[in-house]
Amino acid sequence: MEPASFTVKLVLEYDGTNYAGWQRQPDRTTIQETVERGLERILGTRVTVHGSGRTDAGVHALGQTAHFVTSTAYAPETFRNALNALLPHDIAVRAASYVPAGFHARFSARSKEYEYLIRTAPFRSPLLHHRVWHLSRPLDLDVVSACLAAVQGAHDFSAFQSGKTDSRNPVRTVLRQSVQRDRDDLVRIRVCADGFLRHMVRNLVGTLVEAGRGRIGLEGFLKILAFGDRTLAGPKAPPQGLTLLRVNYDEDMSQ
Amino acid sequence: MEPASFTVKLVLEYDGTNYAGWQRQPDRTTIQETVERGLERILGTRVTVHGSGRTDAGVHALGQTAHFVTSTAYAPETFRNALNALLPHDIAVRAASYVPAGFHARFSARSKEYEYLIRTAPFRSPLLHHRVWHLSRPLDLDVVSACLAAVQGAHDFSAFQSGKTDSRNPVRTVLRQSVQRDRDDLVRIRVCADGFLRHMVRNLVGTLVEAGRGRIGLEGFLKILAFGDRTLAGPKAPPQGLTLLRVNYDEDMSQ
Repeated sequence: MEPASFTVKLVLEYDGTNYAGWQRQPDRTTIQETVERGLERILGTRVTVHGSGRTDAGVHALGQTAHFVTSTAYAPETFRNALNALLPHDIAVRAASYVPAGFHARFSARSKEYEYLIRTAPFRSPLLHHRVWHLSRPLDLDVVSACLAAVQGAHDFSAFQSGKTDSRNPVRTVLRQSVQRDRDDLVRIRVCADGFLRHMVRNLVGTLVEAGRGRIGLEGFLKILAFGDRTLAGPKAPPQGLTLLRVNYDEDMSQ
Repeated sequence: MEPASFTVKLVLEYDGTNYAGWQRQPDRTTIQETVERGLERILGTRVTVHGSGRTDAGVHALGQTAHFVTSTAYAPETFRNALNALLPHDIAVRAASYVPAGFHARFSARSKEYEYLIRTAPFRSPLLHHRVWHLSRPLDLDVVSACLAAVQGAHDFSAFQSGKTDSRNPVRTVLRQSVQRDRDDLVRIRVCADGFLRHMVRNLVGTLVEAGRGRIGLEGFLKILAFGDRTLAGPKAPPQGLTLLRVNYDEDMSQ
């Protein structure tokens, strides 16, 4: 008889500043490997921690999700508390829970929400240094907002994909998006979609900034989106402004 | 004839995590010395940068003020921009301006405002690690709020002073105070006073937390305040939760 196996879902918060991203890599410190090493000390055996997706070096998460399968049925709070005791200060488990067999942090995900923070001020902000893209001049948020509204719904997002278009379907559906100025100088862009192409948020934000600076207008932005040509879009926004806020699942899978 | 001299006021933001506080010390990296070294490169000569007061190691500032006297009358924006180009990422000049001769960042100050951030959650927050005091259980904010309201006005704050009471007047006047819960788990305590005794905010917050945890009640807090006995008060709150928000001057001195 097979030993019983249990699937545990984790919700992770991390400051990505000191990591080479989520995904395990030789000779680099990554979030995935750090969590796996912690679990290994708890379980006495190595398990693979499957994330909802990669985050790049320097990108943060408030609600990255991951799962692992184990035969050791500790209480979920035990996993959370023991991992938090073992993990370094820049990674924490916000929640641990049992989920039905077959749950997969990546393949079961229904949508993801990212936030990108831009600070526009004539001087850097030391207290937000690792969290924002600093721009020394203000952006025209009416233009940014109009461009961002244009990506709502289903679109071919090839223009905002890094690397050559691969064989996968480049159509993604943006379910919600917003831009708001938090204080005088902090711009908060949020995008929730059923999935994201590689570097899609950072490329989108880089192009929105070109629009907000007046280098392209709404009609220019619409052409970039329609033509799907990455070479027309703006540069990729730097990683430290990006935070994966949450990953959503069907209710019956996420408990 | 004496050469003309000009007094320049700086408003500084810094992340205090990597510094041994504001004040110059042998063999330690401090904010004051780092700013003085930057100015030395701009002016070609060493000047003393006088702060509004010390901040301890690990304490942050959004609006620390300082002044220096120089015979070199660059435009204020030149001082700001040149310093920002020279300073490390965790210190920035938010504003530079000429002020009347006789202005002193410390002695001309009329009031200062501090913020202390507490996070109450069963897990640490990696993204706020260097900015909050993490407590694993919630606080009774009604009690915290009642205690904090009791310090409004003029009081002998000896109970919240570190070290032995010195000869100076231990009476300070709290002009404004507030406590609010920002999100579910972030408690924001603000205190504006005409001056602060050594470690006064951190000792006050440590005692407010004792009250919020139910270890002392409002009447216990009032006794501590009235008796002025530091040994009765709570432990000193850790430095990373504290931020000097601003220093206020009479309008005619601060332009």
